[in-house]
Amino acid sequence: MSQSSSDRIVSALEKWIAAAPAGAKLPASRALVADYGASPVTVQQALRVLAERGLVEARPGVGTFVLATRTTRPHDYRWQTAALGSNRRQLPEPSAAALRTPPNDVISLHSGYPDRALLPERLVRGALTRAARGEGAFSRPPIAGLPDLQAWFAGDLGKRTPAGINPPTASDVVIVPGSQSGLAALFRTLVGPGGQLIVESPTYWGAISAAAQAGVDLIPVSSGPAGPNPDDVDRALAETGARVFYAQPTYANPTGAQWSRELAAEILDVVVSRGAFLIEDDWAHDFAMSSQPSPIAVHDDGGHVIYLRSLTKSVSPAIRVAGIIARGPARDRVLADVAAQSMYVSGALQAAALDVVTQPAWRTHLRTMQAALASRRDLMVESLRTHAPSAHLDLVPDGGLNLWLQLPDHTDLAKVVRDCESDGLIVAAGDGWFPTEATGRFLRLNYSGPNPGAFDEAARILGRRLGD
Amino acid sequence: MSQSSSDRIVSALEKWIAAAPAGAKLPASRALVADYGASPVTVQQALRVLAERGLVEARPGVGTFVLATRTTRPHDYRWQTAALGSNRRQLPEPSAAALRTPPNDVISLHSGYPDRALLPERLVRGALTRAARGEGAFSRPPIAGLPDLQAWFAGDLGKRTPAGINPPTASDVVIVPGSQSGLAALFRTLVGPGGQLIVESPTYWGAISAAAQAGVDLIPVSSGPAGPNPDDVDRALAETGARVFYAQPTYANPTGAQWSRELAAEILDVVVSRGAFLIEDDWAHDFAMSSQPSPIAVHDDGGHVIYLRSLTKSVSPAIRVAGIIARGPARDRVLADVAAQSMYVSGALQAAALDVVTQPAWRTHLRTMQAALASRRDLMVESLRTHAPSAHLDLVPDGGLNLWLQLPDHTDLAKVVRDCESDGLIVAAGDGWFPTEATGRFLRLNYSGPNPGAFDEAARILGRRLGD
Repeated sequence: MSQSSSDRIVSALEKWIAAAPAGAKLPASRALVADYGASPVTVQQALRVLAERGLVEARPGVGTFVLATRTTRPHDYRWQTAALGSNRRQLPEPSAAALRTPPNDVISLHSGYPDRALLPERLVRGALTRAARGEGAFSRPPIAGLPDLQAWFAGDLGKRTPAGINPPTASDVVIVPGSQSGLAALFRTLVGPGGQLIVESPTYWGAISAAAQAGVDLIPVSSGPAGPNPDDVDRALAETGARVFYAQPTYANPTGAQWSRELAAEILDVVVSRGAFLIEDDWAHDFAMSSQPSPIAVHDDGGHVIYLRSLTKSVSPAIRVAGIIARGPARDRVLADVAAQSMYVSGALQAAALDVVTQPAWRTHLRTMQAALASRRDLMVESLRTHAPSAHLDLVPDGGLNLWLQLPDHTDLAKVVRDCESDGLIVAAGDGWFPTEATGRFLRLNYSGPNPGAFDEAARILGRRLGD
Repeated sequence: MSQSSSDRIVSALEKWIAAAPAGAKLPASRALVADYGASPVTVQQALRVLAERGLVEARPGVGTFVLATRTTRPHDYRWQTAALGSNRRQLPEPSAAALRTPPNDVISLHSGYPDRALLPERLVRGALTRAARGEGAFSRPPIAGLPDLQAWFAGDLGKRTPAGINPPTASDVVIVPGSQSGLAALFRTLVGPGGQLIVESPTYWGAISAAAQAGVDLIPVSSGPAGPNPDDVDRALAETGARVFYAQPTYANPTGAQWSRELAAEILDVVVSRGAFLIEDDWAHDFAMSSQPSPIAVHDDGGHVIYLRSLTKSVSPAIRVAGIIARGPARDRVLADVAAQSMYVSGALQAAALDVVTQPAWRTHLRTMQAALASRRDLMVESLRTHAPSAHLDLVPDGGLNLWLQLPDHTDLAKVVRDCESDGLIVAAGDGWFPTEATGRFLRLNYSGPNPGAFDEAARILGRRLGD
């Protein structure tokens, strides 16, 4: 038995192994004996060496196989530092509070989504099943969307349009895969990298994130329980030269504010007089409780208001479908961006979304859901007033999913959030909703999540941690 | 009856109507009589005037209603010109050739998608139906994707990974809503506005469009039936300082080229030595006919190759699901961008995609589909050789969906395309696949569309229009 002969086989097989996929079977011993002109004992010795090196595994009676993973060196991605360059856009952590999925044994008031119990489960499952059988499962819808779904979005806004205004048409609608995609497309298209966007402060954190991605600078305008001051908006547009104002005039996230009819008219006047766009994010349209949503878009047919409405939150997280209503060249630019970004939205999801919102049972569901939402809101407000009186509530919102609480100025917000979590209560610090510095210590509490029976306990924990 | 009294009512009601939604019912005549202290005849006269002006409609016995649309002035969106500013990014027309939906009575060889007959209809409908009943219909999956689907993408690449290389793990995978979204995210993240991207020329038009959207400048490297020259790629990286090369090494769209194992190794060496990324778009992985796809990504565990694979084309246009496999900080940046752009992909679509590709019947379907694809390809090649011999075919592709034909230099390409269309044949001019000027007169013909029985007739039409 020649040692050098065994080495020769080891070395040759190492090359073979390096090029072979994991799990590959080595040639049979008999074949190796023939290939390398070596004795069976020499071949066996070579295979033992390879096994000791962790390269192969012998399965008696079956053969010898290349092992799945045998490199144990740590990764070295240091070269990427230079290749990636500076992280200009500084996107927020994707694991941000509102998207966390917590363990089951805690009380979660941090999420941005309603509990499944508030969603039309039977309707959605039926609609998806019908979509699975229908045309939508295989057709490729037009880029702008399924025509009937476009018409539904246009019609739903159009039926609220006063008679002096031309209502939107189906072709003014662009369907996008969720409102986050819609915001990203609008900020890229209407503002663009290096451009400026006026936003309410606080405002929806997803919009802050989409603006960062688009390379857009945010110009904040303070907004409270009654919405922003029109003079502030006018001044911001005039001073910066910005041409776009993003806002949530109905049940704003996080403040819950609904603009009055007069405020809406004044802001529309400002936007029109400055030759600007208002992006109206009507995210909580379906979550009205004690007032009627009254979109500003119905008062404009000059293409100033660009209207965004998602069905994801009220129908199902699986139905990633939203509609943008825009007119004039702005609509064409948005459509071109959407085409370059996502080509088209799944026909199955569009068909299912349309199916749900055109069922008579959808209206019934909305009424039931809105009543349930209102009693959850009332229960949480009552619990907080009883057990956490130092958490100040400026506004009991008429719609939406959240309460926006201001804590005393001396509060160590991060510590309260941590302490609550160690007591089994997850709450979201308000800082993430401010485009710049937070103007106080805020918490956003979602009253639409699972287990409203725990609201009282949650308020007790919060109150205790606030020293109430 | 006082004329001025009627005028007064008309004027008051005009204001009322301007603020009312279309279809609103006017107060009853009796109420108007009381409100305005006028006679019933005066009120009737006022209502007649409003009806004549097209503002209201009287429905006898029911009431008088605000008419739906009564403004007939043309839209005036001229103010948007200044607000939108210059159209820097010049996105291609969204109605580009490859996405057109033509009338039924023509032969369509222009599309970029396979015919429904080549898709696994039973599997997809079953998977969507199961998704409608399952958890995916309501759960909100993690941003990076459904863990089991991440694991499937990683495993499918991992099983081809040679033993000397660490295979990707599930956490290296980011699920995106289709490969177009993936390209947009990668170009924004790895290159960014004003940055430079090396691409093959010709290359996939969707990539050209995504790059334009991301504000990325394209540096073309010529690529033929054998792929690009590694020296050209090296020179382009060195001269421009670009750090990213986007390519389709397996059955490239449009040329059909598959890089040899040697070329793949050389290009990987170039990319590694220049500290750069290779974005490997493995779009046609499932459309192999007469060779095996062999992704370059399996030879890299240093984070240089970023791998993109979509299931939309081979599973169903409704299943907008693709996976990006990236390692190191690059993966984290991509994930942050995807979160800001689309938050997460529908759990129902992810569940359905995973269901399809893990069925044993999926493997059987692929073999059947690939055989059908090969016979379509052969039929089209044969028809063209017989009836349109002056259309030169450099390469009969081993996979993919398209033939890439070069026409004689004197050809008026636009006229040939128009003439063919007037004869009932839609073909795509090759210019759209070039990032800069086309280097000749090319046509891309899709042999995977509907009605292969018409290929012979299509070749006759093309041959006639080419003067063959």
